[in-house]
Amino acid sequence: MENNLKINEAFGEKCPVRASLALLSGKWTLMILFQINENVMRYGELKRAVTGISEKMLIQELNMLVENKLVSKEVYPQIPPKVEYRLTELGLKTLPIVDQLAEFGLANLV
Amino acid sequence: MENNLKINEAFGEKCPVRASLALLSGKWTLMILFQINENVMRYGELKRAVTGISEKMLIQELNMLVENKLVSKEVYPQIPPKVEYRLTELGLKTLPIVDQLAEFGLANLV
Repeated sequence: MENNLKINEAFGEKCPVRASLALLSGKWTLMILFQINENVMRYGELKRAVTGISEKMLIQELNMLVENKLVSKEVYPQIPPKVEYRLTELGLKTLPIVDQLAEFGLANLV
Repeated sequence: MENNLKINEAFGEKCPVRASLALLSGKWTLMILFQINENVMRYGELKRAVTGISEKMLIQELNMLVENKLVSKEVYPQIPPKVEYRLTELGLKTLPIVDQLAEFGLANLV
């Protein structure tokens, strides 16, 4: 036990779990990544898919995801404006985490 | 795309990812589960291992984890009191999620 503790402590600020959680532990973050998944989604579709999220929170989360390079946003200059979101290469790499959340939920919660 | 959307929407409140996140998306939740891991940990060890967490937040999180049956708590009636935490059978099943977080962090963040 002591050994294991020391290994985890040794990571300190470099702990990979901590680093991932700093990026992904928002209440809605992984849910949004899960819903976009391998799709190209318009804002309205995403809003319907992530049921229960407020407009303000969704916009805030999407901005954060774009800033952190997990999601890319394409704005088409047309009327009405069309905005599409998709996962970046980095964002796609979070899907195995989402898969494990789904598996845990299916087996134990729903 | 539309099909996939409908599949995800169909889960509604039964969405397994949503259910898992309701349980696990706290800022410190998965970090604490990761640190306890397969160990038996005393409160003080846990406090040192989860660097940066406040005493109040750690106690609150541990109570939540015990209430949700992810962690079991054993109090030994001695002086000074000894309190040990370990993952329950359900808690151990979250470790594959933590593993994916670690893998993502190692490959992309740290």
